[in-house]
Amino acid sequence: MENGATNGHPAPTAWNFAPSEALLGLTAMSVRAVLGRVKAGMEEDGPSAADSRPVIPLGHGDPSAFPCFRTAPEAVSAVASALGSGDYNSYATGVGLEPARRSVARYLSADLPYELSPDDVFLTGGCSQAIEIVFSALARPGTNVLLPRPGYLFHEARAKFNGMETRYFDLFPDKGWEVDLGAVEALADRNTVAMVIVNPGNPCGNVYTYDHLAKVAETARKLGIFVIADEVYAHLTFGKNRFVPMGVFGSVAPVLTLGSISKRWVVPGWRLGWIVTNDPNGVFHKTKLVDSIKSYLDISSDPATFVQGAIPELLENTKKEFFEKTIDILGQTADICWEKLKGVSGITCPSKPEGSMFVMVQLDLSILHDIKDDMDFCCQLAKEELVVVLPGCAVGYKNWVRLTFAIGPSSLEDGLDRLKSFCLRHSKLKK
Amino acid sequence: MENGATNGHPAPTAWNFAPSEALLGLTAMSVRAVLGRVKAGMEEDGPSAADSRPVIPLGHGDPSAFPCFRTAPEAVSAVASALGSGDYNSYATGVGLEPARRSVARYLSADLPYELSPDDVFLTGGCSQAIEIVFSALARPGTNVLLPRPGYLFHEARAKFNGMETRYFDLFPDKGWEVDLGAVEALADRNTVAMVIVNPGNPCGNVYTYDHLAKVAETARKLGIFVIADEVYAHLTFGKNRFVPMGVFGSVAPVLTLGSISKRWVVPGWRLGWIVTNDPNGVFHKTKLVDSIKSYLDISSDPATFVQGAIPELLENTKKEFFEKTIDILGQTADICWEKLKGVSGITCPSKPEGSMFVMVQLDLSILHDIKDDMDFCCQLAKEELVVVLPGCAVGYKNWVRLTFAIGPSSLEDGLDRLKSFCLRHSKLKK
Repeated sequence: MENGATNGHPAPTAWNFAPSEALLGLTAMSVRAVLGRVKAGMEEDGPSAADSRPVIPLGHGDPSAFPCFRTAPEAVSAVASALGSGDYNSYATGVGLEPARRSVARYLSADLPYELSPDDVFLTGGCSQAIEIVFSALARPGTNVLLPRPGYLFHEARAKFNGMETRYFDLFPDKGWEVDLGAVEALADRNTVAMVIVNPGNPCGNVYTYDHLAKVAETARKLGIFVIADEVYAHLTFGKNRFVPMGVFGSVAPVLTLGSISKRWVVPGWRLGWIVTNDPNGVFHKTKLVDSIKSYLDISSDPATFVQGAIPELLENTKKEFFEKTIDILGQTADICWEKLKGVSGITCPSKPEGSMFVMVQLDLSILHDIKDDMDFCCQLAKEELVVVLPGCAVGYKNWVRLTFAIGPSSLEDGLDRLKSFCLRHSKLKK
Repeated sequence: MENGATNGHPAPTAWNFAPSEALLGLTAMSVRAVLGRVKAGMEEDGPSAADSRPVIPLGHGDPSAFPCFRTAPEAVSAVASALGSGDYNSYATGVGLEPARRSVARYLSADLPYELSPDDVFLTGGCSQAIEIVFSALARPGTNVLLPRPGYLFHEARAKFNGMETRYFDLFPDKGWEVDLGAVEALADRNTVAMVIVNPGNPCGNVYTYDHLAKVAETARKLGIFVIADEVYAHLTFGKNRFVPMGVFGSVAPVLTLGSISKRWVVPGWRLGWIVTNDPNGVFHKTKLVDSIKSYLDISSDPATFVQGAIPELLENTKKEFFEKTIDILGQTADICWEKLKGVSGITCPSKPEGSMFVMVQLDLSILHDIKDDMDFCCQLAKEELVVVLPGCAVGYKNWVRLTFAIGPSSLEDGLDRLKSFCLRHSKLKK
């Protein structure tokens, strides 16, 4: 016993505590955990140890480190001035500061056929905490939620951690990744409470049309469920379809919209998001789901108060040139991605990305030798070429790969060229 | 249907979803929710509607709005420079940025007989998220955790939300709120995994001695459980006992220490805290509890990256004059509180606060007429005198009241004078 007073109890033969096994199983497939395993290969000794090329990060959707994606100066000065004022060092309220809620309501109402009220807005520590809160507020044993496949496994982890069952409906790769609404109807039963859509799409890079979203709302209404619309990539569109918020259909079926400043302002590290009730008929109030959300907020950590304090200025003062520049670069890098992937042996890309920061590509393992599956593909690619992409297993889509095109254009070209060399080197066709 | 395409499904007779009833029950007693109910009375029409006196906030431990508790300029400039650098706009890692972890390890090691490693530190969105994470990582059906009474109901809510049972041991009001260790032994069984202590004490304002903490560690060792040490008020002591971190006894029984910059730097709105494994024998690794914590961090929101980026500078550069000034004011306001409370009819304060920002006082309802209980006392006090204090029910201690003395001295005097008038007006002795 090197320190501390003890009158000599021997160490217990077994300590009483153990980890939550459920948790360990659930999170093994999180994007963070899977990317960690992919990158681990690069760090071991091997061909890459002496490789002086830069690592090309196509795994995570976070372009903030690239100078061309630097956030708007207006956003930085809004936060700096809230911090410097000293007026935002205190605890906020659970639901968020009123001026920030009002400002988010106004910002989102611009795209809706009705006005949101500040009371419709709940501020969160980014979209990930928004998901945590929604699934915690819904948590009742025996209920289930319908999730898209491919999709964001974070939803599954959070639903299951709260004791809900998850059921998957497919998205159609050959129809712009639209929802298989027949599958949604077939999966739903009396214990189904909600369905999740992600639009603009992660991991698929799709942007849903007004008509498709209308059908989603009709299906939800028919089933008596609500829609959780993950719109963290809102407004990041550069193809033929404009972004339409699911909230437009809030009077058909109630919608909880999840959003954040992380993507449009390219500041995922600032941790400011929201849950918004798009529900002109007040169903969430009648069903007390809003009370449940507020209750959970009472026992949750809040986003930094001074970031909340900056929100009105940030939302109102950011110049449209900043948004246009971001869209312009994303449009360019999506083009580069689409063109470069065309010529890659063993990879098929079903459609050109039109929004978000991602594209899904299918591996043809029949022509890639020495590659067991998507995880193996990603680990070998990382090791041989220092290019990091996300295995499909992390989005529930075996033998596909998700890659982001939201990085600096020259790095992207470099990365895709290395991907091409890798595939060529592993191609049976070449031999 | 005022908007949205619909081919006319009628509204469901009943929507499928409902709130988590468990959650609604759990959070009704959170400090936020209870204070909300206390304050609600002030806002209704009544005597207070025309009252132009300022509200005196003795309910919440957050003095940051008072000029004398303004945070250190070094802290503000550390965050401003991390923000302005543009280097911290990205996602952090789940465990936190390495330089910040290293810096917290060094900061805490100064008071320990061994060196912490950066790997012992996990950054969180304040101490409240630290509690969320610990109870989530522990969550296994059938297990129980031992909590102090009076105590912080947030612990109970988080434990129960994760399906754990909670059991309460008493603190002795007449022995400096020390833990009833006999009760701890009597309550524990094979399913007990941990006990919580809060030191410096919230809500009691006590500071435990080295010897008492040594006994807590011995008891935990004997029972095969670990100690969750909520030390969010670390170093805020102004009485005879110096602050001793529970981690000093980490080799007797493993300790998870929870802390934050919220209180010592008076910036609860900045949302930066930590979980630290004080465990020289590596029990948390052997039992995989650390894996479970890391897993949960993979599906949790992080503290803002630029606040993490500021931590090394903030911890290393804050001048000791700032800390001394804070302690000096808290010492003064604790004195004011102790002296003023002595003369108040119907209220007994068992001991002078020596740390944290709070004191517990007992109501003598036998001499206060028209007062049903602690909640009623607080509601009437708020309505008649615009003084907000926390009913004991929110800390599991019926017919006591918690009040904070961490506000500007003149406001505190004003608030305590109003409290005295209130008690006098309601005193049967006077009549």
